[in-house]
Amino acid sequence: MDASLGAQEAGAAMRTGIWLVGARGSVATTAVVGAAAVGTGAAPPTGCVSEHDDFREVALPGLGELVFGGHDVARTPLPKRAEQLMEAGVIPHGLADLVREDLVRADAEIRPGVTAEAEDQAAAVATVVADLEEFKRRGNLERVVVVNVSSTEPPPTAHPAHSTVRALRRALASGEPVLPVSSVYAMAAFLAGCPYVDFTPSCGARLPALVELAHERGVPCAGSDGKTGETLVKSVLAPMFARRALRVRSWSGTNLLGGGDGAALADPARAAGKVDSKARVLAEVLGEPVEGGVHIHHVPDLGEWKTAWDHITFEGFLGTRMTMQFTWQGCDSSLAAPLVLDLARLMALAHSRGVHGPVPELAFFFKDPVAGGEHALEQQYAQLVRWANGPRVTQ
Amino acid sequence: MDASLGAQEAGAAMRTGIWLVGARGSVATTAVVGAAAVGTGAAPPTGCVSEHDDFREVALPGLGELVFGGHDVARTPLPKRAEQLMEAGVIPHGLADLVREDLVRADAEIRPGVTAEAEDQAAAVATVVADLEEFKRRGNLERVVVVNVSSTEPPPTAHPAHSTVRALRRALASGEPVLPVSSVYAMAAFLAGCPYVDFTPSCGARLPALVELAHERGVPCAGSDGKTGETLVKSVLAPMFARRALRVRSWSGTNLLGGGDGAALADPARAAGKVDSKARVLAEVLGEPVEGGVHIHHVPDLGEWKTAWDHITFEGFLGTRMTMQFTWQGCDSSLAAPLVLDLARLMALAHSRGVHGPVPELAFFFKDPVAGGEHALEQQYAQLVRWANGPRVTQ
Amino acid sequence: MDASLGAQEAGAAMRTGIWLVGARGSVATTAVVGAAAVGTGAAPPTGCVSEHDDFREVALPGLGELVFGGHDVARTPLPKRAEQLMEAGVIPHGLADLVREDLVRADAEIRPGVTAEAEDQAAAVATVVADLEEFKRRGNLERVVVVNVSSTEPPPTAHPAHSTVRALRRALASGEPVLPVSSVYAMAAFLAGCPYVDFTPSCGARLPALVELAHERGVPCAGSDGKTGETLVKSVLAPMFARRALRVRSWSGTNLLGGGDGAALADPARAAGKVDSKARVLAEVLGEPVEGGVHIHHVPDLGEWKTAWDHITFEGFLGTRMTMQFTWQGCDSSLAAPLVLDLARLMALAHSRGVHGPVPELAFFFKDPVAGGEHALEQQYAQLVRWANGPRVTQ
Amino acid sequence: MDASLGAQEAGAAMRTGIWLVGARGSVATTAVVGAAAVGTGAAPPTGCVSEHDDFREVALPGLGELVFGGHDVARTPLPKRAEQLMEAGVIPHGLADLVREDLVRADAEIRPGVTAEAEDQAAAVATVVADLEEFKRRGNLERVVVVNVSSTEPPPTAHPAHSTVRALRRALASGEPVLPVSSVYAMAAFLAGCPYVDFTPSCGARLPALVELAHERGVPCAGSDGKTGETLVKSVLAPMFARRALRVRSWSGTNLLGGGDGAALADPARAAGKVDSKARVLAEVLGEPVEGGVHIHHVPDLGEWKTAWDHITFEGFLGTRMTMQFTWQGCDSSLAAPLVLDLARLMALAHSRGVHGPVPELAFFFKDPVAGGEHALEQQYAQLVRWANGPRVTQ
Ligand SMILES: NC(=O)c1ccc[n+]([C@@H]2O[C@H](COP(=O)([O-])OP(=O)(O)OC[C@H]3O[C@@H](n4cnc5c(N)ncnc54)[C@H](O)[C@@H]3O)[C@@H](O)[C@H]2O)c1
Ligand SMILES: NC(=O)c1ccc[n+]([C@@H]2O[C@H](COP(=O)([O-])OP(=O)(O)OC[C@H]3O[C@@H](n4cnc5c(N)ncnc54)[C@H](O)[C@@H]3O)[C@@H](O)[C@H]2O)c1
Ligand SMILES: NC(=O)c1ccc[n+]([C@@H]2O[C@H](COP(=O)([O-])OP(=O)(O)OC[C@H]3O[C@@H](n4cnc5c(N)ncnc54)[C@H](O)[C@@H]3O)[C@@H](O)[C@H]2O)c1
Ligand SMILES: NC(=O)c1ccc[n+]([C@@H]2O[C@H](COP(=O)([O-])OP(=O)(O)OC[C@H]3O[C@@H](n4cnc5c(N)ncnc54)[C@H](O)[C@@H]3O)[C@@H](O)[C@H]2O)c1
Ligand code: NA
Ligand code: NA
Repeated sequence: MDASLGAQEAGAAMRTGIWLVGARGSVATTAVVGAAAVGTGAAPPTGCVSEHDDFREVALPGLGELVFGGHDVARTPLPKRAEQLMEAGVIPHGLADLVREDLVRADAEIRPGVTAEAEDQAAAVATVVADLEEFKRRGNLERVVVVNVSSTEPPPTAHPAHSTVRALRRALASGEPVLPVSSVYAMAAFLAGCPYVDFTPSCGARLPALVELAHERGVPCAGSDGKTGETLVKSVLAPMFARRALRVRSWSGTNLLGGGDGAALADPARAAGKVDSKARVLAEVLGEPVEGGVHIHHVPDLGEWKTAWDHITFEGFLGTRMTMQFTWQGCDSSLAAPLVLDLARLMALAHSRGVHGPVPELAFFFKDPVAGGEHALEQQYAQLVRWANGPRVTQ
Repeated sequence: MDASLGAQEAGAAMRTGIWLVGARGSVATTAVVGAAAVGTGAAPPTGCVSEHDDFREVALPGLGELVFGGHDVARTPLPKRAEQLMEAGVIPHGLADLVREDLVRADAEIRPGVTAEAEDQAAAVATVVADLEEFKRRGNLERVVVVNVSSTEPPPTAHPAHSTVRALRRALASGEPVLPVSSVYAMAAFLAGCPYVDFTPSCGARLPALVELAHERGVPCAGSDGKTGETLVKSVLAPMFARRALRVRSWSGTNLLGGGDGAALADPARAAGKVDSKARVLAEVLGEPVEGGVHIHHVPDLGEWKTAWDHITFEGFLGTRMTMQFTWQGCDSSLAAPLVLDLARLMALAHSRGVHGPVPELAFFFKDPVAGGEHALEQQYAQLVRWANGPRVTQ
Repeated sequence: MDASLGAQEAGAAMRTGIWLVGARGSVATTAVVGAAAVGTGAAPPTGCVSEHDDFREVALPGLGELVFGGHDVARTPLPKRAEQLMEAGVIPHGLADLVREDLVRADAEIRPGVTAEAEDQAAAVATVVADLEEFKRRGNLERVVVVNVSSTEPPPTAHPAHSTVRALRRALASGEPVLPVSSVYAMAAFLAGCPYVDFTPSCGARLPALVELAHERGVPCAGSDGKTGETLVKSVLAPMFARRALRVRSWSGTNLLGGGDGAALADPARAAGKVDSKARVLAEVLGEPVEGGVHIHHVPDLGEWKTAWDHITFEGFLGTRMTMQFTWQGCDSSLAAPLVLDLARLMALAHSRGVHGPVPELAFFFKDPVAGGEHALEQQYAQLVRWANGPRVTQ
Repeated sequence: MDASLGAQEAGAAMRTGIWLVGARGSVATTAVVGAAAVGTGAAPPTGCVSEHDDFREVALPGLGELVFGGHDVARTPLPKRAEQLMEAGVIPHGLADLVREDLVRADAEIRPGVTAEAEDQAAAVATVVADLEEFKRRGNLERVVVVNVSSTEPPPTAHPAHSTVRALRRALASGEPVLPVSSVYAMAAFLAGCPYVDFTPSCGARLPALVELAHERGVPCAGSDGKTGETLVKSVLAPMFARRALRVRSWSGTNLLGGGDGAALADPARAAGKVDSKARVLAEVLGEPVEGGVHIHHVPDLGEWKTAWDHITFEGFLGTRMTMQFTWQGCDSSLAAPLVLDLARLMALAHSRGVHGPVPELAFFFKDPVAGGEHALEQQYAQLVRWANGPRVTQ
């Protein structure tokens, strides 16, 4: 099909960088390995939504054309991290060797990350901006999409400087470290003219001051918290109960997590954001708050795997009480990595179309979508397809 | 709202009969009890889709205005059946007493059913037609919707007489019993000018000859097999995997059933239809056949309750294998009865609008919707709401 | 069999009282209803271990001969509590009416309980002693077994007065409230010459001073924490893994509880004791500590029902990793009440045999058995049967 | 410990052969790989019951000293089968290479198996006897234990020749193929003076004529059907319910199997034996037949893995109905292979002690133990330990 070929070519022409905050984490490493493997045809694009037929006509950068870089506070080189993920069963045996060169190249583009201890946040922002600009120049990239896949941080304390760009600039200038680290990255991304995605539940771009900045700089942002497991299932089961007029009485979720992410979320302060973003979907879809809640427990033995058990009680005709439960055994990085690639491609598209500020049409990917988007997965998908295939107009 | 009130009144004015084939079964009895209880405000309309806000403007007969009758081969009177369902936890204690009068009234309208042994099917059809016409006259009803909720029958043997009305009439006239019992009921319904619904997987109206007859007589029909449990869940989970480009590799379903229905389905011949209609949704939504299958086992101890366990293996990015499983513990009659009421109301609407032949817009209610309708629940719901609220035009 | 008849008669002759601390709770109410129902033959002794054939020759008080009394801080009369349990599905419809007289009689024997606020604990002990003695006299009872089935209390703060009877008496005399409430009851029981059972994880008799007192007064004590659900299953599954040389790597338990007990355990301080006693069995049977832990979440909608989900990862030959999970949906009071009756009968036996201090042979009944007893259920059962059928010698 | 060392040495001195019928199957291959790996210390003896401390004093042949040979009708060489099991996750990456030499050596000792089509069974028996004798001589082995781990065969048709050695010999002599293939192997084993173990549910040694022959030749036999998953769990859960006087009302088991074994058991005729031996434990332990049954479904995608789901309904005090369910996800070969090694070692011991005929003390290992042994796992274990440590007397 000529039209389609045209679309793909237009996309491929856009040399696009992905800058991963948390570039040596499991999700990031899997994304780098996978982009190389799928890009060269060594693996099928299973799990990549943007490879679906519904996006055939959309001009997206090719998976194999993506150029990787990022920040991390960890030192383990990517080839080593890929080994570890191979041992853990996330990446098939042999594959890490196959894409070794790509890993080495990406590793060379990783810069030391900002830490929570950084006192001079103005300087930190400037460093990140410089890192992004050099990456773009060195790679001769048309644009760079920043995706935050670093460890989840605790919810920030509210501060007046979060309200406006002006207040924020003033606070940083005065040396006050008012931003959570994720927001340092988001701010720098906007200043460097880069689209920014919050794949974690961390604060990131979700401050009025930063939303204002995104609009000001004409760049799009999206988030929060990639929807890969239990919440994904919720986003189809809750609408099912609602459509059938069945009354959900309780919905209790238990998540057993190993891995780096599990360790981070074992800290209740950090888990708070996650638990929060996971709970929202139910109340919104069911129209009333529901008993139960979401619980996260750290079980190191599970490694990169995660098991979620959800127990739901509901009421049918004449008050009869019924129960549903499900167990989800997923490899989180395998579920998350292709979505990171999808998001980078779609944000490149948004940027090329001149979209700025939060993009509610990407709600499909997130546990806690910006701008109060739709929570039912099917509606989210329909919205996404419509948007991606829509006319290339500037907002 | 004036418009809404007008709509409700218009609906209430249509005195509508429901004729239940299998009128003394669990589903039927629960429907009679429930219509009375909800109609008088003794119970909320939980589980009744047509009571949802999205149908507020639609002119449907009032739940409390429905008049019940039906056929059955069993003798246990409805008040006694209601007792049994109370013991079994399907109907709350006390409720059967509250609606005793309604049960006695409905029981008086139950006529002896047609059996598989009936040799003279032309006569059987004539008797059913006469029963329906008397019911309509006696009750001074505007229309009567026939709903088949009798025991599931084995798939019929194909016969040339199934192809056209003419061939069928000729075969019956010659005394050949070519129809499965459910189709005798469907034929009679059409001849008596009544809409007909297949809530079971039995053959019913699904013969070309009968579809032809429905069009000829200008009456609508719908089916097959009420979607109340495992398949309902499938119709949201399968699209979830599809949307996320995750490849489902196997989907194995096990259903433990007690009750009358369980006993009937313990017979593999009868189960065949059910298993078939349950399997279809997966292949259609996922675009390829999937290993596993659906298994039904009879466990009398479960009584009116049913437990389904589904085990799904799927593949994510780079081939990683993951698993999901769910257990559904439902009270089938509590799930089915409100849908029977919904269907009767919506078919009355279809009839009043002059719709004839299969109504694909009711796919939302069925495991195996006629006319190759959509299989994803959300799409089915959207289609239903659109149709119900659509202009009152004749097809 | 003559011998057997003789045994039963001897038992029946011992008029035995059960004094329930928490006498208006769910467990207590179910025990009173059940003793009456089983005693009169209105219900079979399902769940009563002491009715098993293995105890046929043992001289135990008859179930129908038990006389009930107790303490509670709640006011709802027992007949009303029985209604509520009927509504909740714990007690079959009709049964509460049948045993109404027994409930009224037991209710008349309930006295106001000691509260945590009671400052003068010496006086509180004296009141409880007086209550027990009057109950015994009024009922003309040979002995009274005290069973603590009141709400779980937080673990107590250590205090030097807990070490010896002498130190304890001195502290109480000086007006210092050093005891948790459960231990006030235990102390009073011993002073009144009554066997005492901790069916809860509360401190109760588990203070060196109180163990000393039990020996001094020549009365037996037993505990702690009735083993009714998840831990019961653990006590057979953990030995299974051990016997097969399979290495358990993690065992994560989640308990969803409604009811009064759920509300109490929603308080992490109170849950601490429970979680602790639930964890012990694994480490002891498996010979090494195991990752995972036990979590309790309060889901009021579950009412008297409880659902536990346990997820176990284990390792087989050559390191292969496998998984087992189970879901237990139990009605806690139905599981606990017959054990309360068993314990009262067996403690009456112990007392009649002159046993004093902790009785390790009752480990079968407890999550956290005294005296470091065996944790594997089969061994516990064998030990119990041997002990009960053993010679009637004084220790 | 001198005694212990002496014991181990005595065992090691006995050079023991294992002859595997089905030597190229998954279980057999895993056993050969594992014996080598554990024997050389490359892997810990997880899953090997006979390596437990309770058997420290027992004179068993060393794991690394076992010599392998066998029959199979398949041609794929063992090193290749080991590769496949590595791909399937049964054997860790790298291990197959490590023990390659052992695999090549064992493969050289595999002879073509007897097929169901073999008409001249007398000749077939003779060939197997010759194969066994040559293996023993070539390897300079003190004894050879034959273990049947070939594909499950359908239950045989009863035949008068099965009753006595005499009748059997006569039938074979007359050229009548009266034996199922597994019994051909068993007969040959006995004639060659080899202990024989039925690890499958096939008929094997379970014919009166063959039991007679085993006694006649002074060799022990054991079986049937290795207890590795669902039935293992049943053998501890069923006693739990029994001990607590809880009444089990239904127990429904569903087994999803991939692999060669799954394919074989997809044939209902072959599954019959398995289903049967799996059901027995419940009726025996619970003292009454229980509704539900065991169902086996073939899901090729599961490969060497198996998932069993069991759903249990039970009744507690006052008739309250409760539910338990468990899901077992096991790698069958990892569970079975160490037991095959255990059995070979323990049968060598039995043989050295002069035990002949069925050995009920090995019930611990089997779903359907010979000679109506105990079904509760703990009792079986106690019996096994006692027997293994018992005096070395001839029966
Ligand atoms: N995997 C999923 O399914 C999923 C879904 C939604 C959200 N997430 C989120 O994605 C994030 C990454 O998950 P993961 O499994 O890869 O975790 P991980 O622990 O493997 O990786 C996180 C990486 O972030 C790095 N990091 C920590 N602090 C940093 C900082 N200040 N600057 C730069 N890098 C820093 C760490 O060194 C580490 O390499 C988590 O926040 C997780 O909650 C994951
Ligand atoms: N309950 C659900 O969730 C659900 C969902 C989909 C479909 N269904 C179908 O609905 C039907 C009814 O289910 P149920 O639980 O009420 O079963 P049931 O056994 O309680 O009732 C069936 C009734 O049909 C009657 N019957 C049998 N043969 C008849 C005949 N020839 N003519 C007239 N009546 C006849 C029986 O006497 C009985 O009273 C079944 O076919 C079932 O498969 C039920
Ligand atoms: N049900 C089970 O399976 C099970 C198993 C093990 C232990 N337990 C323990 O048994 C206890 C009772 O459980 P339940 O479900 O009946 O709870 P419940 O809340 O229904 O009953 C507890 C009763 O104790 C009373 N109480 C509270 N403080 C008291 C005091 N100071 N003095 C006297 N009475 C007091 C309450 O008023 C209430 O009536 C709990 O501690 C629970 O943890 C129960
Ligand atoms: N794995 C377990 O947990 C377990 C437990 C109990 C019993 N078993 C039984 O063990 C047996 C082996 O299981 P598996 O998973 O290794 O199966 P498999 O299919 O991998 O191996 C069976 C082997 O037997 C061979 N075979 C078939 N017919 C033969 C014949 N006539 N003579 C010689 N060899 C023959 C096949 O070629 C194959 O190599 C099965 O019968 C199974 O039911 C296994
Ligand atoms: Na992770
Ligand atoms: Na297998």
